[in-house]
Amino acid sequence: MSTSTQGKKVKIGVLGASGYTGAELVRLLLRHTQVEIALLTADRRAGQEMRSVFPQFSPFALPQLVAIESIDWTKAALDMAFCALPHATTQKVVSDLLAKAPNTKVVDLSADFRLADTKAYAHWYGHEHHAPKLQQEAIYGLVEVHRDKIKKARLVANPGCYTTCAQLPLVPLIKAKAIELDEIVIDAKSGMTGAGRAVKEEMLFSEVSEGFHAYGVGHHRHMAELDQEFSLAAGRDVVVTFTPHLVPMNRGILSTIYVRGVGGKTPADLHTILASAYAQEPFVHVLPFGEVPQTRHVRGSNMTFIGVANDRVPGRAIIISALDNLTKGASGQAVQNMNLMLGFPEILGLEQVALFP
Amino acid sequence: MSTSTQGKKVKIGVLGASGYTGAELVRLLLRHTQVEIALLTADRRAGQEMRSVFPQFSPFALPQLVAIESIDWTKAALDMAFCALPHATTQKVVSDLLAKAPNTKVVDLSADFRLADTKAYAHWYGHEHHAPKLQQEAIYGLVEVHRDKIKKARLVANPGCYTTCAQLPLVPLIKAKAIELDEIVIDAKSGMTGAGRAVKEEMLFSEVSEGFHAYGVGHHRHMAELDQEFSLAAGRDVVVTFTPHLVPMNRGILSTIYVRGVGGKTPADLHTILASAYAQEPFVHVLPFGEVPQTRHVRGSNMTFIGVANDRVPGRAIIISALDNLTKGASGQAVQNMNLMLGFPEILGLEQVALFP
Amino acid sequence: MSTSTQGKKVKIGVLGASGYTGAELVRLLLRHTQVEIALLTADRRAGQEMRSVFPQFSPFALPQLVAIESIDWTKAALDMAFCALPHATTQKVVSDLLAKAPNTKVVDLSADFRLADTKAYAHWYGHEHHAPKLQQEAIYGLVEVHRDKIKKARLVANPGCYTTCAQLPLVPLIKAKAIELDEIVIDAKSGMTGAGRAVKEEMLFSEVSEGFHAYGVGHHRHMAELDQEFSLAAGRDVVVTFTPHLVPMNRGILSTIYVRGVGGKTPADLHTILASAYAQEPFVHVLPFGEVPQTRHVRGSNMTFIGVANDRVPGRAIIISALDNLTKGASGQAVQNMNLMLGFPEILGLEQVALFP
Amino acid sequence: MSTSTQGKKVKIGVLGASGYTGAELVRLLLRHTQVEIALLTADRRAGQEMRSVFPQFSPFALPQLVAIESIDWTKAALDMAFCALPHATTQKVVSDLLAKAPNTKVVDLSADFRLADTKAYAHWYGHEHHAPKLQQEAIYGLVEVHRDKIKKARLVANPGCYTTCAQLPLVPLIKAKAIELDEIVIDAKSGMTGAGRAVKEEMLFSEVSEGFHAYGVGHHRHMAELDQEFSLAAGRDVVVTFTPHLVPMNRGILSTIYVRGVGGKTPADLHTILASAYAQEPFVHVLPFGEVPQTRHVRGSNMTFIGVANDRVPGRAIIISALDNLTKGASGQAVQNMNLMLGFPEILGLEQVALFP
Repeated sequence: MSTSTQGKKVKIGVLGASGYTGAELVRLLLRHTQVEIALLTADRRAGQEMRSVFPQFSPFALPQLVAIESIDWTKAALDMAFCALPHATTQKVVSDLLAKAPNTKVVDLSADFRLADTKAYAHWYGHEHHAPKLQQEAIYGLVEVHRDKIKKARLVANPGCYTTCAQLPLVPLIKAKAIELDEIVIDAKSGMTGAGRAVKEEMLFSEVSEGFHAYGVGHHRHMAELDQEFSLAAGRDVVVTFTPHLVPMNRGILSTIYVRGVGGKTPADLHTILASAYAQEPFVHVLPFGEVPQTRHVRGSNMTFIGVANDRVPGRAIIISALDNLTKGASGQAVQNMNLMLGFPEILGLEQVALFP
Repeated sequence: MSTSTQGKKVKIGVLGASGYTGAELVRLLLRHTQVEIALLTADRRAGQEMRSVFPQFSPFALPQLVAIESIDWTKAALDMAFCALPHATTQKVVSDLLAKAPNTKVVDLSADFRLADTKAYAHWYGHEHHAPKLQQEAIYGLVEVHRDKIKKARLVANPGCYTTCAQLPLVPLIKAKAIELDEIVIDAKSGMTGAGRAVKEEMLFSEVSEGFHAYGVGHHRHMAELDQEFSLAAGRDVVVTFTPHLVPMNRGILSTIYVRGVGGKTPADLHTILASAYAQEPFVHVLPFGEVPQTRHVRGSNMTFIGVANDRVPGRAIIISALDNLTKGASGQAVQNMNLMLGFPEILGLEQVALFP
Repeated sequence: MSTSTQGKKVKIGVLGASGYTGAELVRLLLRHTQVEIALLTADRRAGQEMRSVFPQFSPFALPQLVAIESIDWTKAALDMAFCALPHATTQKVVSDLLAKAPNTKVVDLSADFRLADTKAYAHWYGHEHHAPKLQQEAIYGLVEVHRDKIKKARLVANPGCYTTCAQLPLVPLIKAKAIELDEIVIDAKSGMTGAGRAVKEEMLFSEVSEGFHAYGVGHHRHMAELDQEFSLAAGRDVVVTFTPHLVPMNRGILSTIYVRGVGGKTPADLHTILASAYAQEPFVHVLPFGEVPQTRHVRGSNMTFIGVANDRVPGRAIIISALDNLTKGASGQAVQNMNLMLGFPEILGLEQVALFP
Repeated sequence: MSTSTQGKKVKIGVLGASGYTGAELVRLLLRHTQVEIALLTADRRAGQEMRSVFPQFSPFALPQLVAIESIDWTKAALDMAFCALPHATTQKVVSDLLAKAPNTKVVDLSADFRLADTKAYAHWYGHEHHAPKLQQEAIYGLVEVHRDKIKKARLVANPGCYTTCAQLPLVPLIKAKAIELDEIVIDAKSGMTGAGRAVKEEMLFSEVSEGFHAYGVGHHRHMAELDQEFSLAAGRDVVVTFTPHLVPMNRGILSTIYVRGVGGKTPADLHTILASAYAQEPFVHVLPFGEVPQTRHVRGSNMTFIGVANDRVPGRAIIISALDNLTKGASGQAVQNMNLMLGFPEILGLEQVALFP
């Protein structure tokens, strides 16, 4: 059985190790004292060494990259599989894996299992879900909100980077009925790694450096995830305005969130609610009232920084949250989920201090 | 008298030539067929050549930098002086200049003459205005809004970069009574040259590259200028929410603006209003409905690009405007003002095509 | 007939307008007073507007993009065609074009016609040249070295960006027999647009920002071009050491060149030779002895800046040259060639002042 | 006495904690299992919290910043002091500290104690050394070369970043008499943090982004350090050519080194010598022959990557080394020195995996 703390390390697989979230998982897991990286997959790079794909791992001994179809999941006997595969392929892979190795636990970093509602999934993704049973089993892995369920889960859907950054400051305020639900505006800005390692013209250095732009205006898929979680927190339907932008930097998401207090709640009251909600959380840090965070100060760490300030329009507050999209926004949160699922201390392997400058 | 088109070129002075807006003025004026750069000032660099301060001008013959106090304004006999000096110093310099050379025209790029209301000035800047008479004489130089007054002006207050970027999309909508005035949110993002060449720790490369942050949250001075112009357009007080952010790039401002249509106005209606308002303007280009601009596509040009898209929240629109903060946001607009004031064709010296990539 | 200066503008075609050198040609030609952009090709984007491919051109009227195979060269009746196509395709296109429209002049920006020696071509490119006759006709278009031949040429091979940056400082020294030919080391650094708009993983923003590396160490194709021109200048075989590197910036090449003076020539003597060689050149500027250039100060301009300094090792000099790889290193030089070939003043359309900051 | 491994942690002071090397020390020491950060100094920021100066440390408990003059070194009873102060101030501070607390060990990150020769120091720095006795006592802290002496040292002069990057590939080759000593060319490129947090115009974002340049051409102070160590390794005077450049990135140094083999040594032979010299070193990794490193793949780690390739000029090799200037080039190496001086395992606190992307 796979829990832990005996001398024996648990066996980990990273499916999709040639992408950025895969590399980030390897970076974190190499420093995790209780795990052994036993399997790395990368279909197009199968047969190559990880160092050919990510030279930063040259000094480390790591398993050779293999193709997913070549794996015997029973023999692999993984304690935990991280799925960092492109959308849609994931559903089939996780189905196969869990059919053959039902004791393996899975954290899926794609969007495939994030929506609990099959209709919402079909609406946003344009096809029926290929693994509806697993979709029902999957737990949404925003630790600070769903920690107890995650501890008992076999399959966790790791939240999106934008949505993590927006939910952490908003969910406690929505639950506390402290803000007007129909006026929430989330203006989000992300570094380029949020788009992954996909080879597209619009991701070329010369297309994105020295400039700034919005994309997916009015219709970004992450909205479905926000709708689900905000509505859950509110106990009614909530639809927010959300605009993502691309910043010429590698890592980091910053969300500037515009809200109006209700029931006489001032911005300072909103700050108090957040500070209190996160007082014991290891990876959410609420700055003193009036101070706002910068993405660079959480770079490479699993921290989320949150600031609350007065808007000049009476009754309105400006809330700013910042995290590293590859760490707390993806692979760090995945390791945090793993720690809960395998009974490890939650912060194991996630103690990195932010790299600034 | 100084108007133009005879063989003789008009004499131009740039006060404050060692800053970025000064350099941008020189870049533009060197290609302007009707002007001669006759005077360049830079107090701390007086006695040096412009090429020591900005090596890109090495191939060009330019006057040596002089200190302002050493100038005899009567002898200088400038047709036009551009004032690109730090805030507050400007008031005294312009007073002196116009006292001694009343026929010289002035475009001031600082914030000193932008606020017409003496009380508003004192409130935002913490002291009485030092040249209240000139403050009354000064015309606010947003060409697309105040073109006729500018043509007759002796002293023009060149608008701020953030405010130009926000006013161009909003003023026509406000005038058309097409949007809810109490719910306007402007989330603005600027490149680093917007902060000028001031030597401060927070402007160092390693402090600002690879990261993103907001600043002046809830209390940025540019708000006063927005209040004045939006209230003027609306015929009542308008107070907007405005948050500036810094992008790790040199040039560009992008404003993401959230509005709600009134009187049944849809986002497509707002687009029509803007497209119609700017159909004949040489420096404002409204993209097809649903398309949004990127700062890189106006880099180094005097263009403003505006896009309008549907928000997913019914009745709300997302409007995005982009310009180069040093060109249309400062020195390009100043040359545009000069062209009007001296009777030149408005686009002279401003025909640069954007530099992308 | 196509020469010039009457009211009638000459007809220009840009083949390969969807790449960066194509866009740079359009940027420059839009400001050229004697030309009309009559034809733009882009095979994969045929049928689209230029503004879809490069939104910075939205405000300008330009012909729709067409596929090369759809063109009737006789009807097109171009005065000048710029070929900005990928390597190898060019040979066939230029052959066809000149067969059907023998009066059209061509500047080819690819490497296809740069090597005069058919054996050298086959060696470096791995196949026989497909248009050996044209290869013999083509003139190597480094204006400052081959100006007279270019004026009479029908087909000019526009030099590479790295090689232009290395040849301008070295050719006069080699011709003057002022430096040791067997010890030349050229350490070159280029911005990312030098690699074009090709969609490759190693060109993604996140692969190249925040880092620096060399590539093609010991075997870069540009070496063939250097060999040819340096040997020609020396009257004997010259083989130099050349290492290209990638800088996380869009535009610019800087070459740091290590040489040893011969015949008692000091670094100051080398400076004198260069300053004298380029005293009358509009696009090469030699800085005062001891000063060295920065790429940012030539950005977007057609200038090359050259500096010469003492090495601490006696007898050795460090020479640094800088240019914009898309302008003097490609499209600007191509326009300069066109001006010579069509009898226009050499600087027409190339008067842009560098864009800094 | 202070060595280690009992439960008790050793007491560490960081003098000059408000600079980048200070912050990097804190980042590393926070993860070091055997140390306690007991003292942080920053003269201009005395009385402030470290989180005001470097917000990334907000989640951590750290001592308040104090002024150096306020410290009683005897009471402070530090086991180890890291000196990350500006040049020259260091000499006095270390003298005072060691006079009052002779059992404290010191790693000095400035250049003050790197030159053993008093004349060389006076020549390069323009004044006599203020602590000549300590200058004699100090050990040059390039661990891979001087490990045994460092273990017994009380005062270690931490090497410069450029010089570490150049020495690691060259010292073994010089010792092996494998390369021509009079033809070594080192073309070095550094990220901006190499210049520290000094507030200077030339370090502003807009002055250094989107461009590339050399500086200190022919006369950079780091040369003195190279002269000393290369001459020591060679047993004769060695003077190399060295040119530093600035790359628009935060972290990283890459040295492109041009050498000629002697005694029939081929580039492959040079590779063998280096691979063999560093086979057991934890922080130097020699890539397979022909592969070259990138700075981004060592970012934030204490690794140096070295590659060796054939030059096309027979007999010559191109050697490229890469490290993070703040880690192996400064604070990481300082911690490595501390580990040796205090008897800890050499890699403690330095196990970070590089952060890419």
